[in-house]
Amino acid sequence: MYRSHNCGQLNASHINTEVTLAGWVQKSRDKGFMNWVDLRDRYGITQLVFDEGRTDTTVFEQAKTLGREFVIQVQGTVIEREAKNKNIPTGEIEILVTQLTILNTALTPPFTIEDETDGGEDIRMKYRYLDIRRNPVKNSLLFRHKVAMEVRKYLSDLDFCEVETPYLIKSTPEGARDFVVPSRMNPGQFYALPQSPQTFKQLLMVGGMDKYFQIVKCFRDEDLRADRQPEFTQIDCEMAFVDQEDILTVFEGLTRHLLKEIKGVEVAKFPRMTYEHAMKTYGNDKPDIRFGMEFAELNTLAQHKEFSVFNNAELVVALAVPNGGNYTRKEIDALIEWVKRPQVGANGMVYVKCNPDGSFKSSVDKFYDSEDLANWAQATGAKPGDMIFVLSGPANKTRAQLSALRMELATQLGLRNPAEFAPLWVVDFPLLEFDSETSRYHAMHHPFTSPKPEDMPLLETDPAKVRANAYDMVLNGNEIGGGSIRIHDKATQQLMFKYLGFTEEEAKAQFGFLMDAFQYGAPPHGGLAFGLDRLVAILGGQETIRDFIAFPKNNSGRDVMIDAPSAIDSAQLKELHIQLN
Amino acid sequence: MYRSHNCGQLNASHINTEVTLAGWVQKSRDKGFMNWVDLRDRYGITQLVFDEGRTDTTVFEQAKTLGREFVIQVQGTVIEREAKNKNIPTGEIEILVTQLTILNTALTPPFTIEDETDGGEDIRMKYRYLDIRRNPVKNSLLFRHKVAMEVRKYLSDLDFCEVETPYLIKSTPEGARDFVVPSRMNPGQFYALPQSPQTFKQLLMVGGMDKYFQIVKCFRDEDLRADRQPEFTQIDCEMAFVDQEDILTVFEGLTRHLLKEIKGVEVAKFPRMTYEHAMKTYGNDKPDIRFGMEFAELNTLAQHKEFSVFNNAELVVALAVPNGGNYTRKEIDALIEWVKRPQVGANGMVYVKCNPDGSFKSSVDKFYDSEDLANWAQATGAKPGDMIFVLSGPANKTRAQLSALRMELATQLGLRNPAEFAPLWVVDFPLLEFDSETSRYHAMHHPFTSPKPEDMPLLETDPAKVRANAYDMVLNGNEIGGGSIRIHDKATQQLMFKYLGFTEEEAKAQFGFLMDAFQYGAPPHGGLAFGLDRLVAILGGQETIRDFIAFPKNNSGRDVMIDAPSAIDSAQLKELHIQLN
Repeated sequence: MYRSHNCGQLNASHINTEVTLAGWVQKSRDKGFMNWVDLRDRYGITQLVFDEGRTDTTVFEQAKTLGREFVIQVQGTVIEREAKNKNIPTGEIEILVTQLTILNTALTPPFTIEDETDGGEDIRMKYRYLDIRRNPVKNSLLFRHKVAMEVRKYLSDLDFCEVETPYLIKSTPEGARDFVVPSRMNPGQFYALPQSPQTFKQLLMVGGMDKYFQIVKCFRDEDLRADRQPEFTQIDCEMAFVDQEDILTVFEGLTRHLLKEIKGVEVAKFPRMTYEHAMKTYGNDKPDIRFGMEFAELNTLAQHKEFSVFNNAELVVALAVPNGGNYTRKEIDALIEWVKRPQVGANGMVYVKCNPDGSFKSSVDKFYDSEDLANWAQATGAKPGDMIFVLSGPANKTRAQLSALRMELATQLGLRNPAEFAPLWVVDFPLLEFDSETSRYHAMHHPFTSPKPEDMPLLETDPAKVRANAYDMVLNGNEIGGGSIRIHDKATQQLMFKYLGFTEEEAKAQFGFLMDAFQYGAPPHGGLAFGLDRLVAILGGQETIRDFIAFPKNNSGRDVMIDAPSAIDSAQLKELHIQLN
Repeated sequence: MYRSHNCGQLNASHINTEVTLAGWVQKSRDKGFMNWVDLRDRYGITQLVFDEGRTDTTVFEQAKTLGREFVIQVQGTVIEREAKNKNIPTGEIEILVTQLTILNTALTPPFTIEDETDGGEDIRMKYRYLDIRRNPVKNSLLFRHKVAMEVRKYLSDLDFCEVETPYLIKSTPEGARDFVVPSRMNPGQFYALPQSPQTFKQLLMVGGMDKYFQIVKCFRDEDLRADRQPEFTQIDCEMAFVDQEDILTVFEGLTRHLLKEIKGVEVAKFPRMTYEHAMKTYGNDKPDIRFGMEFAELNTLAQHKEFSVFNNAELVVALAVPNGGNYTRKEIDALIEWVKRPQVGANGMVYVKCNPDGSFKSSVDKFYDSEDLANWAQATGAKPGDMIFVLSGPANKTRAQLSALRMELATQLGLRNPAEFAPLWVVDFPLLEFDSETSRYHAMHHPFTSPKPEDMPLLETDPAKVRANAYDMVLNGNEIGGGSIRIHDKATQQLMFKYLGFTEEEAKAQFGFLMDAFQYGAPPHGGLAFGLDRLVAILGGQETIRDFIAFPKNNSGRDVMIDAPSAIDSAQLKELHIQLN
């Protein structure tokens, strides 16, 4: 037995107990006749003391050889500390060491094993096993485990059954790019790794499993962006004999449970917002509603005056910044430059300062009188002392630009408090979106999503107007989950593939198994998938997901620690009937 | 809302309640004026009644159109049943239906959706979603979920943290064949799918995670045998600052907990047996100890007589079959033929009948007198009325043959009771095994397994004799888990790779990251992995694992339902820089 207690366990109640501890040397302070060592493990830090007067000479001398991150085992007596540390649970005691065993030595770590480290991301990824020793990363992994366990318990208690679906499945050309796996036993054929267990969970519903969930790895071979991983984890859920309302109720319950159990936060019933409303009011289908600054459209109020920029624009849209009236000219110019950056893409920005005395000062005073500006203020809800910013241009682009500005302003104003949680549902997503590149419609969610029955006739006449029984759960400006009620009859599913530009043969070759299944008594069903990586990061109050993943990949999809991917030998390639070019 | 209750919920306490149910038509009995329908969902079966006298005519007529597996929704009143069925929870009531909605029709299923179906395995796999509607499969999946949840709860309560390790890792030539995944972003390079998260969990121990577990899919591209799947699930565990005793205690506790919680079975402390003892006594490193028939070696007693077959054999080994003395000549001949089958491979078998009067009748009476045979009886523990079977030949082969016979006899005698659970630990496995094909030693467990310190000197002189700190948990003749204390210092790990025939460069290229990690303060650690598929099947009292996997693959590695693997198009191949030949 290597230890009687861990390093976070001992306190004043253990004084005079003989204990054995094991762990890592966090640091040591050698005062000559006294030597203190902080011993660290996953559970905490316990102070060891080696005292020339009280410690055996050999042990005392040996302690002087200990380096940072050495792995040691000590025996000793718990004694009261002179200088107590109220900040840690073990701060009232220390161990007067009687025996010391060095279990392993350590090279000097390439960065400090401290909460604030001196190591950049690359080096921390290369030595991820050292990074994990740091509290922020270690605690993120423990936190992730806690969230996953709570999810499992909550759903199990509601009769959900976790079912493992296969990882070696069939490649489908829809959606993102698949990772593929050559089959040695079936030369020239490939498995695909699942982008989601979508069709399998639908088959489980056809199979009567009624309530399914799975915390499961999914894979997308997409060009990587910061904070997107080629393998990611979903909380995947599906229910039979449900309509949208049932689904929203269950999964709102899950999120509310997590917020309460894990964050101690009680939230009210989630607001619901249509996709259309979200786009018009926040320029975004995942609005952060921890703060206001809602959009007001000024077309009626601002067009047909002398200002051609607005007159020629599809959309003139504004928001009011609370207490923004005291922006300096320099600050305003900086914000104008900010929206003109290529990443945002505006051509310019109009501002209206709402002075405390009720007067206005704007960059378009030449074209608009104070009655006009007062109308703008009323439309945006601006009060004396606020600032109005106005953008104009093509509707979709301009909304996206103003949304970006809104988020930037909120960040600058400290309105995005990670300890505050503002969830909502966005509903009534469009079924289809037009892809101008391929000149065809794509499923906005996926091809298994059910159109709203009342919108079905529009499929022929105005496909872009068809709304889906699809919904997203949004938390603090992030989509944390999304789903839909599914099509559950073969005829509608065939129709959907037709509208998506599949030939009958293509649809059959790819998804024949699912449409066949629908013929044998498929129940109405629907579901939702949460992105666990992001959910955990947001609950943990972080913007980045990487610290919540034990062994993440970099932006080239490489694990720099194990050096993967790597070359494989020619014999292996031959067995797989593969040549490289 | 599709239903107020599920189909397993209603009983006499609900009489006169108005309810809404939804589910599948299991069967209907149309008596003309009365029509009974069994409505089924995951939770049970509820009887519906349509009565010409009491049911609306339209509804009554509609009910006559219902076919098997139609999906329907009904409203009605819970009434007392005339002919009660005590076998099901809902057997006291039925629903007098007032409204009927057909939610989906169904083609006639290709096999009956009954506990005992008329469908063979191939057709059941092709229509797995229908197979899952059958109780045996459905209950197996629910049972699997229950086992997995209990495992997670038990380990979490002991401070184990479930950490997700990556699926896209690095190919290693050791062990079984890897499935590989070509990387589009790194042309000519491949990820491998993990055969186990072995190195990652060791890195987590270096990272101070202390207690890790994960229920995780693993992959082996091996030629398939019945009941072996290319993707399989492990309960993967690792602990730091432990010796073998700590590990055995924790995971014996887990298994004992599962047996108690899930099967209601209390088992005593697990017996422990060395590998050597298991091989000598049962011919097998995973002995089924629900019954005796232990081996006795008869070399001393049976050699140096006139019987050259025994005299020339490396090993003469026997077992006694309790009450086997009444085997007929025909039955004995059948058993002799059984051991001579190529799958077993014995050349012949000697038998000794122990007559109730204390005399013997054997197939070698010519060579051995009754004193000899009495000695054999004493050695094997045979009593009057028992039967002794003796095999001879090369030691390892002969033990395997007698082990096969022992299992066959136990099956014939009904000694393998699936409701009885006899777990044990097999310990002190050899570190290495000699591969005559490649003329080198291979790691019996894996190259990270620690040799017993006291056996280290034998590595140079007699490698086959070196024992490892490795252990298997065995349950009812199946290895359900296995693990070892790991090497945790670079020098020993390097030495091990050397003994396994790696050049220094090969070892570094493949496992340099792990040996590097060992230099930065690796704690002593060890672990174990359970095969969840088999564990669940054994706890569920089944021999086959397939029913406990929602979507299994057949023996060619194919999922016949979704038709995977399949061809991928040339554009995709080009993107991956792959040509097929």
